Amino acid sequence: MNVRVGVIGVGMIGQDHIRRITQVLTGGSVTAVNDVDAARAGQVAAVLPGASVHATAQDLIADGNVDAVLVASWGPAHEEQVVAAIAAGKPVFCEKPLAPGSDACLRIMDAEMAAGRRLVQVGFMRRYDTGYRAMKATLDDGGIGAPLLMHCAHRNPSVPPYGFTTDMIISDSAVHEIDIVRWLFGEEIAAASVLRPRRSGRAAADMQDPLVLLLEMASGVLVDDELFLNAQYGYDVRGEVVGETGTVALADVSEVTVRTANRHGGRVPVDWRDRFIRAYDAELQDWLNAVAAGTSAGPSSWDGYAAAAVTDAALEALRTGQRTAVSMAERPEFYAK
Amino acid sequence: MNVRVGVIGVGMIGQDHIRRITQVLTGGSVTAVNDVDAARAGQVAAVLPGASVHATAQDLIADGNVDAVLVASWGPAHEEQVVAAIAAGKPVFCEKPLAPGSDACLRIMDAEMAAGRRLVQVGFMRRYDTGYRAMKATLDDGGIGAPLLMHCAHRNPSVPPYGFTTDMIISDSAVHEIDIVRWLFGEEIAAASVLRPRRSGRAAADMQDPLVLLLEMASGVLVDDELFLNAQYGYDVRGEVVGETGTVALADVSEVTVRTANRHGGRVPVDWRDRFIRAYDAELQDWLNAVAAGTSAGPSSWDGYAAAAVTDAALEALRTGQRTAVSMAERPEFYAK
Amino acid sequence: MNVRVGVIGVGMIGQDHIRRITQVLTGGSVTAVNDVDAARAGQVAAVLPGASVHATAQDLIADGNVDAVLVASWGPAHEEQVVAAIAAGKPVFCEKPLAPGSDACLRIMDAEMAAGRRLVQVGFMRRYDTGYRAMKATLDDGGIGAPLLMHCAHRNPSVPPYGFTTDMIISDSAVHEIDIVRWLFGEEIAAASVLRPRRSGRAAADMQDPLVLLLEMASGVLVDDELFLNAQYGYDVRGEVVGETGTVALADVSEVTVRTANRHGGRVPVDWRDRFIRAYDAELQDWLNAVAAGTSAGPSSWDGYAAAAVTDAALEALRTGQRTAVSMAERPEFYAK
Amino acid sequence: MNVRVGVIGVGMIGQDHIRRITQVLTGGSVTAVNDVDAARAGQVAAVLPGASVHATAQDLIADGNVDAVLVASWGPAHEEQVVAAIAAGKPVFCEKPLAPGSDACLRIMDAEMAAGRRLVQVGFMRRYDTGYRAMKATLDDGGIGAPLLMHCAHRNPSVPPYGFTTDMIISDSAVHEIDIVRWLFGEEIAAASVLRPRRSGRAAADMQDPLVLLLEMASGVLVDDELFLNAQYGYDVRGEVVGETGTVALADVSEVTVRTANRHGGRVPVDWRDRFIRAYDAELQDWLNAVAAGTSAGPSSWDGYAAAAVTDAALEALRTGQRTAVSMAERPEFYAK
Repeated sequence: MNVRVGVIGVGMIGQDHIRRITQVLTGGSVTAVNDVDAARAGQVAAVLPGASVHATAQDLIADGNVDAVLVASWGPAHEEQVVAAIAAGKPVFCEKPLAPGSDACLRIMDAEMAAGRRLVQVGFMRRYDTGYRAMKATLDDGGIGAPLLMHCAHRNPSVPPYGFTTDMIISDSAVHEIDIVRWLFGEEIAAASVLRPRRSGRAAADMQDPLVLLLEMASGVLVDDELFLNAQYGYDVRGEVVGETGTVALADVSEVTVRTANRHGGRVPVDWRDRFIRAYDAELQDWLNAVAAGTSAGPSSWDGYAAAAVTDAALEALRTGQRTAVSMAERPEFYAK
Repeated sequence: MNVRVGVIGVGMIGQDHIRRITQVLTGGSVTAVNDVDAARAGQVAAVLPGASVHATAQDLIADGNVDAVLVASWGPAHEEQVVAAIAAGKPVFCEKPLAPGSDACLRIMDAEMAAGRRLVQVGFMRRYDTGYRAMKATLDDGGIGAPLLMHCAHRNPSVPPYGFTTDMIISDSAVHEIDIVRWLFGEEIAAASVLRPRRSGRAAADMQDPLVLLLEMASGVLVDDELFLNAQYGYDVRGEVVGETGTVALADVSEVTVRTANRHGGRVPVDWRDRFIRAYDAELQDWLNAVAAGTSAGPSSWDGYAAAAVTDAALEALRTGQRTAVSMAERPEFYAK
Repeated sequence: MNVRVGVIGVGMIGQDHIRRITQVLTGGSVTAVNDVDAARAGQVAAVLPGASVHATAQDLIADGNVDAVLVASWGPAHEEQVVAAIAAGKPVFCEKPLAPGSDACLRIMDAEMAAGRRLVQVGFMRRYDTGYRAMKATLDDGGIGAPLLMHCAHRNPSVPPYGFTTDMIISDSAVHEIDIVRWLFGEEIAAASVLRPRRSGRAAADMQDPLVLLLEMASGVLVDDELFLNAQYGYDVRGEVVGETGTVALADVSEVTVRTANRHGGRVPVDWRDRFIRAYDAELQDWLNAVAAGTSAGPSSWDGYAAAAVTDAALEALRTGQRTAVSMAERPEFYAK
Repeated sequence: MNVRVGVIGVGMIGQDHIRRITQVLTGGSVTAVNDVDAARAGQVAAVLPGASVHATAQDLIADGNVDAVLVASWGPAHEEQVVAAIAAGKPVFCEKPLAPGSDACLRIMDAEMAAGRRLVQVGFMRRYDTGYRAMKATLDDGGIGAPLLMHCAHRNPSVPPYGFTTDMIISDSAVHEIDIVRWLFGEEIAAASVLRPRRSGRAAADMQDPLVLLLEMASGVLVDDELFLNAQYGYDVRGEVVGETGTVALADVSEVTVRTANRHGGRVPVDWRDRFIRAYDAELQDWLNAVAAGTSAGPSSWDGYAAAAVTDAALEALRTGQRTAVSMAERPEFYAK
């Protein structure tokens, strides 16, 4: 079966997903696009044979040639668009965040539960990375015993000098670790704290970079997450889980080892795309497969909600300097693991 | 455009390519199958919606619903099938070897030149491996200066105790390095020698395992290739090019590093599929893309011929114990790089 | 010149230093021993040609055949012995801790300042480890820019089920990182906090293992130190400094890489001796050289005091659960860097 | 006991051993020196308290204040000096080669056997390297099964443009691998061949650099040894033994891993001293200990002879281009393992 996808939001991420569906993955095609910038929507559609341009997200969702909806618009628009897709009974892939704020996420959950079946997949693509998957397999096989701690680092070479705020280190960057540790350990996050190391002189003047986010899992597993958005040397995502009898860590990802000029070693990825492109591919293929099969896969609305609730706590911890308990609704049976 | 592929030979390799085209790659579908074992062909077709079964390879090639042909039959059948596809003007992907023996390969080249356009891609998938590609990029960028030597190792955990002969270490295993060094260094192989190290007690009684194959490139670059088919510990393909100012080597491919029981380290692949699955995917996607675009890509008939000519020399070197010059036709302009 | 050393305390550590002086290092000999266990002192002296046994530490210090004193007795005895050696004008090497409690350390400093010259070296041997030295060289060369964070881990395979308390994780284990970060960054520690991850079931019932100690340097550099005394898999000391433009980390220390049973990798040290034996050798050779030259080297009384002051704060943080500022005297000119 | 050493030949190597005995090792002192350059001998002795200068090697050997002799003169002088020391009944450490040519080595063996006890240690220091020792331990423990192959590389950054001949690649560089494989595998080398890869443009015009030396052990184990004297990027000695069930390889020796400028990795040693300084220390300490104990240790005259015999065969293989059998006397019972 070929899944006909309508794409809402055709900025950088949206266009990348369109390229993926049309040139990399199997079982999908893009039949409709919409964007707040109508001209941009038109340009993107122009090179997609047979794709129509819709003036509104609502129109796109209603299009009979659209089997499933991919939401890559900006965060504040997600709730309305996702709820509309659910109302139309159409599966929807929503880029992270599911919605900016846990209340909006709860409303999406309510809509989905009312619809009676799982229709939403949230774009936490790290769950599809072969490194994290091998880490989870090691954990699940008992290879290192019960997990006790995890050390993470999330380093970007740089962010633009304007527009990227300290809050966004939590909401845009740390949210990846927030999701991945919930998935790795199969449990919720109970509390968050934020530490402020010495600032890098390479960061914008009003930005606290790096940060360290501490996450306490329900079982007591402690996660420390170094977030460093101006690390200069490359895009480097690292993680090591410490268990009762051993540890498992993400390996370096270089394809070759070079020896020159009294050094040996490998390359560090240049950006997130370089590092995680295969995870994005696998994520969206999984979605297309699930849509075609009439099932659901991947991170759910509950996962989107939980990440939002932890993000809220972490942002409060950033503001107050205090350890902040995560306030979270009870997990509905509908979203049982 | 959707490329409708007819698959000749649906054993393990053929079925794996069918899975690839239908479940992993984009732009292709399998519309026809043929196999010497008609029952097997029928079983495979039964789960491919709309695919027809043909009694002969010739019938499959003639099928109007077949745009391009994938040859995964046994080696001795390749020549006739590939030539027939060329005669029908249909692009053909042929698993290695192009044909068993360089004369047969020359006849395929003649047929292709007569057809006036490149229609054949040979299944040397290592050229699509990200490791070898990074190695070639390092070479081409001048990162290690002019190449002087290459050290290779090709280790399988084991081969069946019966049926796998010493000759096959050259024709089935070493042929991968024979192709890859031609591609890496952009030149032909001038001579081959075979060395016989101490035999492993794990090898079948009549098998000389391991072997070392020495290849001399036209420029003098010397390649030593350890071939060890019963290495027990895993499937491990290694390579290091030594240049005038540095070296570049394939890195280990483990996704995670584990620390337990006074050891740290990563995993070694279990078999060729585990190690090279992405290269197979990339290879066949490249073929589908080229077919759809009406162009050609990847290893050509000339590459298939050259590998066969070197294999002939290496087999003679194995028999005689002597350094053996490679006898090779001149490269036709048609196959200019 | 040959330095004649008197050794106070001939338990495991004292005997190891005697072996070092007599069988490994140059320029020293052991001419006198003392121990609270007179029988043990006698046994040790019996195999040291010409060595005398003294009934008291005071007698040993007064011995005309003793040029310098090595204190390897238990911590509570250090102050009196070190002060007595200073009073006798004899150089003294004192195992860590200089004294249990910062007040005692201050009294030692007072005695040394009264003597008018540096006579004390404290046994923080990690400063002599080639790994930490290469790390400091990288930092000092500006290779990674200004330091911002450091991640440490200090893992022991196990500790005895009785007798090793949670406090000792700070005072015996973390004290090594407390000293090393002061040395690496060339500044004092301003505050300490302690985090309590999920407990390992392999730890004694009343022990909080692992712990995470957070240290804030005066400049704001933040150090997180995972302390895990029952890590099972080996003795593993790790460290990574994150700077403005790069990072530097201790490398694994395995001499060889082994490939067997689908794994590749190296060994993890079995215990502290295995990991740091060369650092102990280098430390004591440096002391002997300094004594022979009439100079001083290595960690000073001030370093012993500073470590004690930070240990006091960390222990309070462990008790109270609060971030605790380090209370420290001003650094006397006498101990200027 | 203090071993009083007389040093013959105080060029770079001799002076380095003097520094080692006086400043690093225990149990030895330098009491006499001799050199063909009397002025140089005088300068060296001037800073060695109590050391005398002798006009001839014979005088030094006869000196009553000399317990043992260290020969670091040039190769052609070794035979006479070593035989003289044997005649005087004094233990002698002789830098490699024991003598240039196997006949001279046989005469040394005859002298030693006539003396009735082992007095000679040859300076093959790699046997004391922790990497090779761990490799041998892995082999001896059966960790990788019976050895079948070994891959070696011996890379120097550069050699002087004049004076270093192609023959010296065998006699000065490869001789280290010649000794180490005999020791690793506990057997003799049966034959040698030399391959000539593409020449590096960085080598002197009349020098064949790199070379590949093939060594066939008596059991059939095949060793390939890449010798590259102008490798530019660093001093890099590598080795991997392939056994029936696994492999063991020398690990990289960097103390730290650095991440900067999109690269991660470690350093490569700058020269042989940087790489093997600890092996030289351990080698000479072992000699001093054996002399003090009245025993012998390390590589024997037989080892010196065997290395010379293989070197002779390898040099002939270099000249003739042919595989050359090693011609070797039978091992006397006196030199039984």
